[in-house]
Amino acid sequence: MIRNCSVLVVPAQGECRVDEYQDIVTEDGVIDEVMPTRAYQAEPDVEELDATGLIAVPGLVNSHTHSPMVMMRGAAEDLSIDDWFNRKIWPMETNLTPERVRVGARLACAEMLLAGVTTFVDHYFHADQIAAAALETGIRADLAPTFFSSTGADGREAAYQAARDIRALDVPRITASLGPHAPYTVTDEDLARTAEVARAEGFRIHLHAAETAEQTRSSQDRHGATPIEILERTGVLDAGALIAHGCGLTDSDFRILANHAARTTVAACPKVYLKLAMGSTTPIKQLQHAGIPVGVGTDGAAVHNTLDVWESLRLLALTQKQREQSAEWMTVSDTLRLATRGGAAAAGLPNDLGAIEPGRRADLALLDLSGPHNQPLHDPRAALVYSTRASDVVTVVVDGNIVVRDRELVTADLSDILAEARAVAHTLVDLSRGGAVQHYAP
Amino acid sequence: MIRNCSVLVVPAQGECRVDEYQDIVTEDGVIDEVMPTRAYQAEPDVEELDATGLIAVPGLVNSHTHSPMVMMRGAAEDLSIDDWFNRKIWPMETNLTPERVRVGARLACAEMLLAGVTTFVDHYFHADQIAAAALETGIRADLAPTFFSSTGADGREAAYQAARDIRALDVPRITASLGPHAPYTVTDEDLARTAEVARAEGFRIHLHAAETAEQTRSSQDRHGATPIEILERTGVLDAGALIAHGCGLTDSDFRILANHAARTTVAACPKVYLKLAMGSTTPIKQLQHAGIPVGVGTDGAAVHNTLDVWESLRLLALTQKQREQSAEWMTVSDTLRLATRGGAAAAGLPNDLGAIEPGRRADLALLDLSGPHNQPLHDPRAALVYSTRASDVVTVVVDGNIVVRDRELVTADLSDILAEARAVAHTLVDLSRGGAVQHYAP
Repeated sequence: MIRNCSVLVVPAQGECRVDEYQDIVTEDGVIDEVMPTRAYQAEPDVEELDATGLIAVPGLVNSHTHSPMVMMRGAAEDLSIDDWFNRKIWPMETNLTPERVRVGARLACAEMLLAGVTTFVDHYFHADQIAAAALETGIRADLAPTFFSSTGADGREAAYQAARDIRALDVPRITASLGPHAPYTVTDEDLARTAEVARAEGFRIHLHAAETAEQTRSSQDRHGATPIEILERTGVLDAGALIAHGCGLTDSDFRILANHAARTTVAACPKVYLKLAMGSTTPIKQLQHAGIPVGVGTDGAAVHNTLDVWESLRLLALTQKQREQSAEWMTVSDTLRLATRGGAAAAGLPNDLGAIEPGRRADLALLDLSGPHNQPLHDPRAALVYSTRASDVVTVVVDGNIVVRDRELVTADLSDILAEARAVAHTLVDLSRGGAVQHYAP
Repeated sequence: MIRNCSVLVVPAQGECRVDEYQDIVTEDGVIDEVMPTRAYQAEPDVEELDATGLIAVPGLVNSHTHSPMVMMRGAAEDLSIDDWFNRKIWPMETNLTPERVRVGARLACAEMLLAGVTTFVDHYFHADQIAAAALETGIRADLAPTFFSSTGADGREAAYQAARDIRALDVPRITASLGPHAPYTVTDEDLARTAEVARAEGFRIHLHAAETAEQTRSSQDRHGATPIEILERTGVLDAGALIAHGCGLTDSDFRILANHAARTTVAACPKVYLKLAMGSTTPIKQLQHAGIPVGVGTDGAAVHNTLDVWESLRLLALTQKQREQSAEWMTVSDTLRLATRGGAAAAGLPNDLGAIEPGRRADLALLDLSGPHNQPLHDPRAALVYSTRASDVVTVVVDGNIVVRDRELVTADLSDILAEARAVAHTLVDLSRGGAVQHYAP
């Protein structure tokens, strides 16, 4: 029972609104009722949280990330996309071990929860370790064990098995997807095999595609098909896909995606497109016309530097206004909807997450907008998009459980997480052994 | 005496670096010495600040803002630039009174100081009230009393007198500039008169110019001259100008500006250019080739929503990479230099601010980068550009005085400032009386 807060109401369409003086009743991890605050007799076995002066917001979803890459934060700056992959990140990833991935994932989960991110949609190696960190810290996660075709059939099948193993944990809060890296690092045969497994076993497929216009051109030159056409002909779109980025989508791609709208979502990570000077951003307007839900993500912190979805949603609004050359496009309400309901779709749970409504999972953040950077508060919705900081998040609830209280992580020891991360950080950026997990030449 | 911090060293050229375990000695508001920490006997009359674990950064400069507009934060969203001016902001500004400006300026000073912004370069009405707020809160300010030609010779001369009155306060921390609004709202005759006064009395001129490519085209159509050509022929560039925005500069403008490089600076406010879908951003690469120093600003919070220069400098780096289509451009070091040394130039104090060096004013911020969003800390310089939040600022010193300690404003009562702002906020957004201070039709 959360008492006496304001509630950000995010409808499926139209303007968001803020209802003041509300109580939120949750039971067994589900929102049972949202109702005007009233005097009532507390029941002895009901935990009450006084949220006077705070605003409850649906927990944000980080719709595409590689959470353990927080371990490389700030270690690859001011580089072209080619150098970033080939001189830094893919060589650094030869240093990955299960233990180091677990350390990074714990730090990532802590950073996200403290910022009000209640779900992350991840794509990385050693995903069992990421599952362990999510279980420990109380965050919700969809995890796609990643593979390249360069690791052969064994690597591919091991990645599928890792997804099955996560599913076998049988924790509803932790789901699994299949994680081929991208059409330029995974062969058509392996994509087709992935689609078969996905269809047969009911997995979604989470992968990168059409990240830049350059990638699309290159794919057309080499394969006579855009990345989206490859996903169509290999059955990936039929199986259901979460596509990261899509900045290089073509007009014909939108028509293909529209035919698979019921099973496709796209994640936009705008900070990354600017930072790597990718030249374009996710074409959200066209995707929405095609009926495709879009979520907001950070991508990995090796390029985004944070896992702060507030930062991402603000940049999404700003860069979409720029893209469409209209300050009236990507309104405050639409931006908040992408970060909540859009994220729910990206997480594969469009009806369970993304809004503070009876019947949905009790995933929410309580924010204090009384700081000088948010005041006077003419419009709390505008504050949430354009002036809020992650540090305004006070309390966070996932699945009805309080995981952050008074700005402190309660599910794990933050100082232990930080100490562990500092202790192994140097091992991840060590390039002395040479080699790389993959070569970037899309 | 600040003990045992790291220090961000921002050289005039080349890479920034971080020196660890340093003491900073200040005397009479000036940095006396920066030296390795060592055991020593504290003198009884020396105030010591233990900064172990913190990083000292030159105080950020907000190179262009309209500080009292915090009172309109979030009250004019998702509007075209024409509607933003003509339907919201300029009608709202009919509600300005000296008292309401003072209330807004106090809030703005509090927000900036708590974020480590030690100087702001302001352009607004009732500047005497802004001076009072700066005096009270301990921030450094350069204030340009604003006028339009629509207020006639009386309005123009009153604005000059307001600048003289601020100068007559004889507080070195508070300086004055002349503040014609822009070439599209101030006649050539009034610009020429402003240039005369500026030259005769030693003022700089702070104004908007070439804000968009559209403004430049319109100026060419109506006057046969770009805004910069108008500033040249009216003597404004000879007198010395801080130009806000300059997103619509032409190749010939760069040649003109290069001839006045010693007395010209430009302020870039990138969030605003995205949010108002202005279609371009400040051409910093070309300005640097022309020898023009560039600072980083927020512009007013009626469009920027915050006065957070950390946010601005991050967006500056990201949007400059995008503009030049190079991820290798606007490096971490160059970005930090613009926000510090560039800001010092924009404030008219290029040799007194912008670096933690002996002989410069003791304006600095101490930040705690130990939070999970900055860790592990492979490169504190990258953290300052890409992951730091304003809430990481712990202690702030202006002119050798501690103005923020342990994240609390010590020079004024923040709760009083906030209560006052909340009490009058509604009066500033009241549009019931009709009218406007000006019409936007550049």
